[in-house]
Amino acid sequence: MAKRIKIGFLGGIGEIGKNMTFIEYGDDIIVVDAGLSFPNPEETPGIDYVIPDYTYLKNNAQRVRALFITHGHEDHIGAIPFFLKDVDVPVYGSPLALGLLNNKLGEAKIRSAKLRAVKDRETVNAGKFTVEFVRVTHSIAGSYALSITTPKGVIFMTGDFKIDHTPIDGNRTDLARISEIGSKGVLLLMMDSTNVERSGYSMSERNVYKALEFQFDQNRDKRIIVATFASNIHRVQQIIDCAVRHNRKIAFSGRSMIKIAEIAKQLGELSYEEEKVVDIEKINKIPYDRLCIISTGTQGEPMSALTRMSNDDFKKVTISNLDTVILSSSPIPGNERLIYNVINKLCQKGATVVYQALSEIHVSGHACKEELKLMFSLLRPKYFMPVHGEYRHLKMHKDLAVTMGIPEANIVIPELGNVIEADKSGLRKGNNVPAGSTMLDGSIMAENSEMLLRDRKLLGVDGFLIAIVSIEFDDDNQPIAPIIITRGINVNEAFSEELKDDITAELVRGTFNEMDLNGSKQFLRKMLAKKLQAKLKKRPMIIPIIMN
Amino acid sequence: MAKRIKIGFLGGIGEIGKNMTFIEYGDDIIVVDAGLSFPNPEETPGIDYVIPDYTYLKNNAQRVRALFITHGHEDHIGAIPFFLKDVDVPVYGSPLALGLLNNKLGEAKIRSAKLRAVKDRETVNAGKFTVEFVRVTHSIAGSYALSITTPKGVIFMTGDFKIDHTPIDGNRTDLARISEIGSKGVLLLMMDSTNVERSGYSMSERNVYKALEFQFDQNRDKRIIVATFASNIHRVQQIIDCAVRHNRKIAFSGRSMIKIAEIAKQLGELSYEEEKVVDIEKINKIPYDRLCIISTGTQGEPMSALTRMSNDDFKKVTISNLDTVILSSSPIPGNERLIYNVINKLCQKGATVVYQALSEIHVSGHACKEELKLMFSLLRPKYFMPVHGEYRHLKMHKDLAVTMGIPEANIVIPELGNVIEADKSGLRKGNNVPAGSTMLDGSIMAENSEMLLRDRKLLGVDGFLIAIVSIEFDDDNQPIAPIIITRGINVNEAFSEELKDDITAELVRGTFNEMDLNGSKQFLRKMLAKKLQAKLKKRPMIIPIIMN
Repeated sequence: MAKRIKIGFLGGIGEIGKNMTFIEYGDDIIVVDAGLSFPNPEETPGIDYVIPDYTYLKNNAQRVRALFITHGHEDHIGAIPFFLKDVDVPVYGSPLALGLLNNKLGEAKIRSAKLRAVKDRETVNAGKFTVEFVRVTHSIAGSYALSITTPKGVIFMTGDFKIDHTPIDGNRTDLARISEIGSKGVLLLMMDSTNVERSGYSMSERNVYKALEFQFDQNRDKRIIVATFASNIHRVQQIIDCAVRHNRKIAFSGRSMIKIAEIAKQLGELSYEEEKVVDIEKINKIPYDRLCIISTGTQGEPMSALTRMSNDDFKKVTISNLDTVILSSSPIPGNERLIYNVINKLCQKGATVVYQALSEIHVSGHACKEELKLMFSLLRPKYFMPVHGEYRHLKMHKDLAVTMGIPEANIVIPELGNVIEADKSGLRKGNNVPAGSTMLDGSIMAENSEMLLRDRKLLGVDGFLIAIVSIEFDDDNQPIAPIIITRGINVNEAFSEELKDDITAELVRGTFNEMDLNGSKQFLRKMLAKKLQAKLKKRPMIIPIIMN
Repeated sequence: MAKRIKIGFLGGIGEIGKNMTFIEYGDDIIVVDAGLSFPNPEETPGIDYVIPDYTYLKNNAQRVRALFITHGHEDHIGAIPFFLKDVDVPVYGSPLALGLLNNKLGEAKIRSAKLRAVKDRETVNAGKFTVEFVRVTHSIAGSYALSITTPKGVIFMTGDFKIDHTPIDGNRTDLARISEIGSKGVLLLMMDSTNVERSGYSMSERNVYKALEFQFDQNRDKRIIVATFASNIHRVQQIIDCAVRHNRKIAFSGRSMIKIAEIAKQLGELSYEEEKVVDIEKINKIPYDRLCIISTGTQGEPMSALTRMSNDDFKKVTISNLDTVILSSSPIPGNERLIYNVINKLCQKGATVVYQALSEIHVSGHACKEELKLMFSLLRPKYFMPVHGEYRHLKMHKDLAVTMGIPEANIVIPELGNVIEADKSGLRKGNNVPAGSTMLDGSIMAENSEMLLRDRKLLGVDGFLIAIVSIEFDDDNQPIAPIIITRGINVNEAFSEELKDDITAELVRGTFNEMDLNGSKQFLRKMLAKKLQAKLKKRPMIIPIIMN
């Protein structure tokens, strides 16, 4: 059998084909991105990081030739410090993506990584693959699509992208090169599906400036605090430019904002005069109406600068009616309640708060429908796989591809762990590989994360009851009073006594038996569960302990 | 001192002035609405219902003259079965609101309630108050604003409203009467703030029909499932009309959909021929393309019909590529992740899913900015209190009122528990009353809900560790091995043994002391907390138990 190209999808909660993808042909494997998924309180309570399960790559480490990074967002580079410990390969990406990665590697004390910065249209050979970096625009500078020449044809991965004709740094999506690649023939296109629900075009990043300008004009007498994603360098640049134009000093606030601004400045991706910046520790020297604070915290993250300001828990900034807070961002679905809590608290302290519902203070970094169509038109691929999105997005993107003339039989919607095999005769699903998520819980990888999360979800809703029962009787041949401990369940003193009495009655009756501890435990558990259900209509975790 | 009107705000999570309000003058108190708040997994995990704390009204029950209901939504009537047990007063409202309430009272086995149905412009005397019911449009039929004549002037409460000039039942917002009331003079306006962020006008309910028609046309060969709020009778009517026009039978699915349709039909608020309806248990007899299922579950509620369909857990309906599912609704903020999970699963089963992001298949039931302005223009109140909204909405509504000519000094943003005192000389904040929430947890009122929720939140994120330590030594004068129980925290066998060894070492050292059990417990707790923090970077609940 002739060899086929294999494309494997690792990592991700909900979204598919985003965090980590590998491409394999014969003895060679290349990897595209190695990012984190964002944990959420409903599905992954208490989890700090969700890392792709890259067991397959670890087991085939000697065949992995390189890691290619499309751009420097967490969900594309956040897992690299973990990955490189297991699979030590060269990493190729834009200077900014590598700058952000290098900072992470430093924190993880990895000093030997082989980082290789690339330029527009640069090609890298890796085994039987040749990978070309094709400039795209996105909500972070230094973003690339990858055009991967394989022995079976060209695979074009857009990465996260939009088509911004007027980007802040002038580096447009390289439509000329994309068009050339399309003309030479593309076997397979894998394209960002994030905004497939939105008709029309995404707005240019430059459009935000007008809204910023308006707000700075309207709030001349106020201190202005703008929260945005730290990695959105061009947004940060525009905020800086607007502040400077309005004769304000700038203070960066929030650990990642300070760090990323520093890295981006060093790389020349962010430009401002040092004297325009004041340390957040020293803002008290600046009059309110001469200051602009650029802060993290657009998603209501509990430890972020903005959330702490809203809680009066951020030493250097006390919010009052002298503040205007601008959230230059949009909520990531699921974060709405957290974000609105922050906004409500800021309002209660008297601040004027400006957010996306009220002002065109944010634009998306992802292509809308017409941009996706343009990409189809330029690349005219034989096969198509929608990636970067939840299932409903991928399905809609498939429908869009069909309207763009790609036969339904030539489209596959990948799922987590799928390995899709491709050659000129078609796409087919091969054998799956381990995928899913590795959970970092505190400082360690959760060993049995499924059970851990199940227990947390149960405890978080219904609490627990522990009954400690001694089956030995005391010196007077009386049963020893059982101990009942409950948390997170409404068992009051009286009900607890009732439960103890019931257990004691069973002790006297000789129900619990040293010879059948498991049976005794089960009896105790069932008896307690029944009582709790009858009285409270609740099913807490019940742990019976029988001591002998 | 002359008596003043007092207006008190009870109940609500996040939103203010929505669930329950009382108005007091001298010996007379009237109550407006008694609704539930919706619990949410972040703030109220495991809680079933959140009821306003109406202690003040209970303590003054003999002075309460009546309860007035603006409309039949859960957040306005859901707490009445509880309230009437403590404060047995007549209840006035529209036939539909009372019909829905009566159903609830039946379930709570309250048979003696004094329900009084009112008509448009009907007035009710209650103590020194005269309450007039003024028709408004909203996302449920039978909605009223209240014009309350008090000895100090007229208080106008809009209730939840929009200005729909073409409502399905022809009962428009009674602008003529509102205009008359305005001309006679209004002391205080209290107005719905839900949509104050939205410019322009809300769309008429009738607009949804066009989008429904389009979907029914496009999906002629499919079974069509439409999910909507059961209480949105006019929406349900339009879905029925559209289905019947397309020669489909209707099946109601979901307990509340079936029940509310029945009640509304009896009251003449919903109209259809019985032969057009098929029991959900018998839909297998109807061809797919001749059936329309009208279902609950627009918010991704885990036990709702639609969610169960998406999980293959709804016996009578198996979702496939023969289904088109229409969500005629919008997400309540915070429910997005649940809803999108349901949509993704439906898509994975092959269904076509239509939702608000893709089609104008829903309109809001709340007035947008221009409608709010119209209300100000017609009523020209002396004082204004924005209600029904989160703090940011109320603040924005205050700003809007100022632009409408109401002096800032004449506007108060109320907070939970506030009692606002009013007369012709102004508004002022009086003494607060107990407010906040009473939590129904399973079958009982949570006695210490603050601690209960704190424990659940901690357990749900970090789990627990219990150490059971006996300070008596065994017959050979050896320490008895301690027991360690953990759940929801990553303590493996080896680490557990390490902890036990540490405890045993302290036992041998004689650290734990029968004479100072509390001190010993604290020592044990701290020692374990330190180990867990050092090894796992986690702070689970730690419960030390010392047995002697």
